[in-house]
Amino acid sequence: MQLGLVGLGKMGFNMRDRLRAHDHEVIGYDPRPEVTDVDSLAALAGALQAPRVVWVMVPSGTVTRETITELATVLDEGDLVIDGGNSRFTEDKIHADLLAEHGIGFLDCGVSGGIWGLENGYGLMVGGSDENVARVMPIFDALRPEGERADGFVHAGPVGAGHYSKMIHNGIEYGLMHAYAEGFELLEAEDLVTDVHGVLRAWTKGTVVRSWLLDLLVKALDEDPNFAEISGYTEDSGEGRWTVEEAINHAVPAPVISAALFARFASRQSDSPAMKAVSALRNQFGGHAVQRVSESG
Amino acid sequence: MQLGLVGLGKMGFNMRDRLRAHDHEVIGYDPRPEVTDVDSLAALAGALQAPRVVWVMVPSGTVTRETITELATVLDEGDLVIDGGNSRFTEDKIHADLLAEHGIGFLDCGVSGGIWGLENGYGLMVGGSDENVARVMPIFDALRPEGERADGFVHAGPVGAGHYSKMIHNGIEYGLMHAYAEGFELLEAEDLVTDVHGVLRAWTKGTVVRSWLLDLLVKALDEDPNFAEISGYTEDSGEGRWTVEEAINHAVPAPVISAALFARFASRQSDSPAMKAVSALRNQFGGHAVQRVSESG
Amino acid sequence: MQLGLVGLGKMGFNMRDRLRAHDHEVIGYDPRPEVTDVDSLAALAGALQAPRVVWVMVPSGTVTRETITELATVLDEGDLVIDGGNSRFTEDKIHADLLAEHGIGFLDCGVSGGIWGLENGYGLMVGGSDENVARVMPIFDALRPEGERADGFVHAGPVGAGHYSKMIHNGIEYGLMHAYAEGFELLEAEDLVTDVHGVLRAWTKGTVVRSWLLDLLVKALDEDPNFAEISGYTEDSGEGRWTVEEAINHAVPAPVISAALFARFASRQSDSPAMKAVSALRNQFGGHAVQRVSESG
Amino acid sequence: MQLGLVGLGKMGFNMRDRLRAHDHEVIGYDPRPEVTDVDSLAALAGALQAPRVVWVMVPSGTVTRETITELATVLDEGDLVIDGGNSRFTEDKIHADLLAEHGIGFLDCGVSGGIWGLENGYGLMVGGSDENVARVMPIFDALRPEGERADGFVHAGPVGAGHYSKMIHNGIEYGLMHAYAEGFELLEAEDLVTDVHGVLRAWTKGTVVRSWLLDLLVKALDEDPNFAEISGYTEDSGEGRWTVEEAINHAVPAPVISAALFARFASRQSDSPAMKAVSALRNQFGGHAVQRVSESG
Repeated sequence: MQLGLVGLGKMGFNMRDRLRAHDHEVIGYDPRPEVTDVDSLAALAGALQAPRVVWVMVPSGTVTRETITELATVLDEGDLVIDGGNSRFTEDKIHADLLAEHGIGFLDCGVSGGIWGLENGYGLMVGGSDENVARVMPIFDALRPEGERADGFVHAGPVGAGHYSKMIHNGIEYGLMHAYAEGFELLEAEDLVTDVHGVLRAWTKGTVVRSWLLDLLVKALDEDPNFAEISGYTEDSGEGRWTVEEAINHAVPAPVISAALFARFASRQSDSPAMKAVSALRNQFGGHAVQRVSESG
Repeated sequence: MQLGLVGLGKMGFNMRDRLRAHDHEVIGYDPRPEVTDVDSLAALAGALQAPRVVWVMVPSGTVTRETITELATVLDEGDLVIDGGNSRFTEDKIHADLLAEHGIGFLDCGVSGGIWGLENGYGLMVGGSDENVARVMPIFDALRPEGERADGFVHAGPVGAGHYSKMIHNGIEYGLMHAYAEGFELLEAEDLVTDVHGVLRAWTKGTVVRSWLLDLLVKALDEDPNFAEISGYTEDSGEGRWTVEEAINHAVPAPVISAALFARFASRQSDSPAMKAVSALRNQFGGHAVQRVSESG
Repeated sequence: MQLGLVGLGKMGFNMRDRLRAHDHEVIGYDPRPEVTDVDSLAALAGALQAPRVVWVMVPSGTVTRETITELATVLDEGDLVIDGGNSRFTEDKIHADLLAEHGIGFLDCGVSGGIWGLENGYGLMVGGSDENVARVMPIFDALRPEGERADGFVHAGPVGAGHYSKMIHNGIEYGLMHAYAEGFELLEAEDLVTDVHGVLRAWTKGTVVRSWLLDLLVKALDEDPNFAEISGYTEDSGEGRWTVEEAINHAVPAPVISAALFARFASRQSDSPAMKAVSALRNQFGGHAVQRVSESG
Repeated sequence: MQLGLVGLGKMGFNMRDRLRAHDHEVIGYDPRPEVTDVDSLAALAGALQAPRVVWVMVPSGTVTRETITELATVLDEGDLVIDGGNSRFTEDKIHADLLAEHGIGFLDCGVSGGIWGLENGYGLMVGGSDENVARVMPIFDALRPEGERADGFVHAGPVGAGHYSKMIHNGIEYGLMHAYAEGFELLEAEDLVTDVHGVLRAWTKGTVVRSWLLDLLVKALDEDPNFAEISGYTEDSGEGRWTVEEAINHAVPAPVISAALFARFASRQSDSPAMKAVSALRNQFGGHAVQRVSESG
């Protein structure tokens, strides 16, 4: 089928390739002339046959809001917009309502798989009406991994359910990564273990902890033994924070995911104000020696 | 090759089958007459040709200690014992020394894979000398999964390194399981998500969080939707505790693994003494209503 | 000086008493006829001499919003409103702007001390302009504990700083309470300690952990030895959640405060969906026995 | 009464002063000639009238073990030794048995109060027999704070109960300090709060979070505003680790105390191996930019 695709970054660019490889007609728009197929959203609308389906794959937040707002003006009644970016799920109802005022439909779709999705297919979690989901199914089928549809695609619920599911997916990802990371550090810390890299690789088949993330961890060590070249400074991109906020909203204990999130925060501090306070306190009551700033390495 | 195998429980029984299927001669000993091949450890020693190799696959702690102590008396100089159970790595040196007094060699081998290892092969982490490892390699090759040796087997270091690695493997497992568990609870908590089971299944291919544990989680929900039949009461079997203790010994922060461990402790409490104290405190300073024991469900 | 006081609940009622004992003229309004001095907010405005000062001490959220919205209509230019309730600090700017449209000033004031404040005085954290703070200082001086002003009162910053500080105060409170609670449970768990109550009492003087909360914990045990009559089921009233949300907003690691918050969430679950998932997983890979719902106590 | 006191360091030196100020006869021994009253443990035994009471106040571990072992040889049947240091409670039974072989009694006594105990008195938690406790009571009464005995002294149980209680005391201390520390960092992080120091000071009277540790935190800020001179690098001295290990032994969830402990571990890492692994993983699956070692500050 025919699809308009807005945003040809790391994800959108690959998705266009994968869709075309599955014989869909994709017209892409991106502000960067070297990758775009058309010059503007209006031109994109012009190039698509009504009723149109437009997939938005741009940074969450302001850019997504602006894109959908503009699409509401260039599209027509009966068209359909899919937000495939990492929008917070609370945005979806707002976008659906905004488009509904113009008779335009909306689906939210969480997309997982990163740069590997081009080859492996993408895990897809969709929110919206049955009718709209059915309409885009050929596209979903092309994007998801080969095999059973249900192993890489879900219609998770009404508008918002797709991005909610993707947010939780990413929250889990934080926890999984940190579990492996703690294990890695514990292996490194023990002199008895002389082949940490080998231990991790030996876990990739047959063990309880085998996973795609573990495969990637081994691959990362293949490329940079002992992580000699990499700093522990680690960004976070929103979904981990939102997941913990939803845990709070729903009164769900989330000690693992929040620990993983806090570890990222800590990784970006050159010194911890909290630990300065602890150190100062110890000095006050116990006369414990403290490390002066001038002494630290 | 020929192998003596002590302990034919859930793990050892399957391992005997897998080894025999790979054309190794296995003589098994177990106190239960219905599964054993010989009547005693002495009979096992008698049935094996020197130099013997005996794999011990019995519960960690007292049983393993007693088994190895007895093997030291029935085996001869030049024989070799492998502890494939879940012994704490600090036991390994003790066992190696105990056997060395009789000229008997020792390897420790962490074995992962659970009841699925019979079919998929087992992940193996081994500690000991190069010479002893080489001697048992045909057995290791039969037990490990098909494919590259390094994907399911590692000689991790000297005696103790195998069980240390297995302990960390299990510690990671605690963290991974709890990350999925938090995500599951967060999906269940949100009304928008009408197909939690479907969301989890849709993650099994293409996504960043795909793993064998996730496959099992989906399988568990296939068998018991919404976990209606299962209680949250969860045992722990030692390795998680040991992992946190090693984190303390090595001054390695392990917030994720310890959170997963503590959640298991909490799952076994009918009421939390700590939370009684918190509730009592709130009542003291704020006049907040507390729930009396007689009111709780 | 003269003060209007809206809300004569557990906190406001005591504050009226304390202020009157310090020779201030307080006119209180509350919807409950048995405690109120006037019949309505309009009557309160009528009874006060301009320029008026009105202290709002009502539940945070909707009730505070409605009260301030109505005060904006019954008060006059030059009057001043203080929100002494537990409003989220993000509300303060909204309330200040709402009142400023009518030329009415605004201060936010976090008040700590609970039911003990009547006697001991209240810790006060105030946000707003120097001018407005100076105007209400006689009231603040009467409410705060005896002694140095700075030991029980702070002008923390502009509008919002008072409630932000109070929120953090309460977040810390969560952490402190849970630290004692874990210690209490650890004392209870050890057979060697035959007088847990006595240990806690012995900490109330001279030790590093002495505090008002510890005094209350001992008092609570005096009244209910072993907390036999109290359930661990524990509510939370917002500030703990907001504190963790601010930790997320500011990328500040807050493992202690969040752990205390999550423990409250867990205390209200009869069974944990997360732990059901963990239990189901263990059963899947290890054939570990699980506790069926029908078996649990 | 007469007391032998072994160890005249930061704690023992002050305790000798306090006991003498209470008209007890204290003969102190320390290897440092400038502080000691006698030249050796044998000389100490010679200078005391039988039946002797000797208080040991030396570093826990090897030094305490050696001191008690030597005391067993220089003291006589009917004498009594008190270990007032920070020994792990599991040592107490060993020391009691060692002394009992010579007919010498033993008490373990946890002592809290740090360098402030000289003036304020020390919180005391004692383990041992009623008879031995009664014998030393005049000393305990002199060391503990003025006022009710039960507010600063407890006979917590049999041998070991004193040090167990002190260990838990210190574990709680970790949690309390970190709760304040997180609050401090959260205040510092918010621009609205222009007087963090003032906020903390305003909490010292009347509030729920008032405590001696809070007083010390304010004092520390008085001396070093913003903690400009202090590094966050923070040691730990054993009791926090032991507390978490006891939590594990007793299957007691201890998320707060363990979080405080792990934060200290993290404070001593120049870069986190775990976070390197997380960063490497993010780079693998998402093509996320990582910070190279050469870029970090």
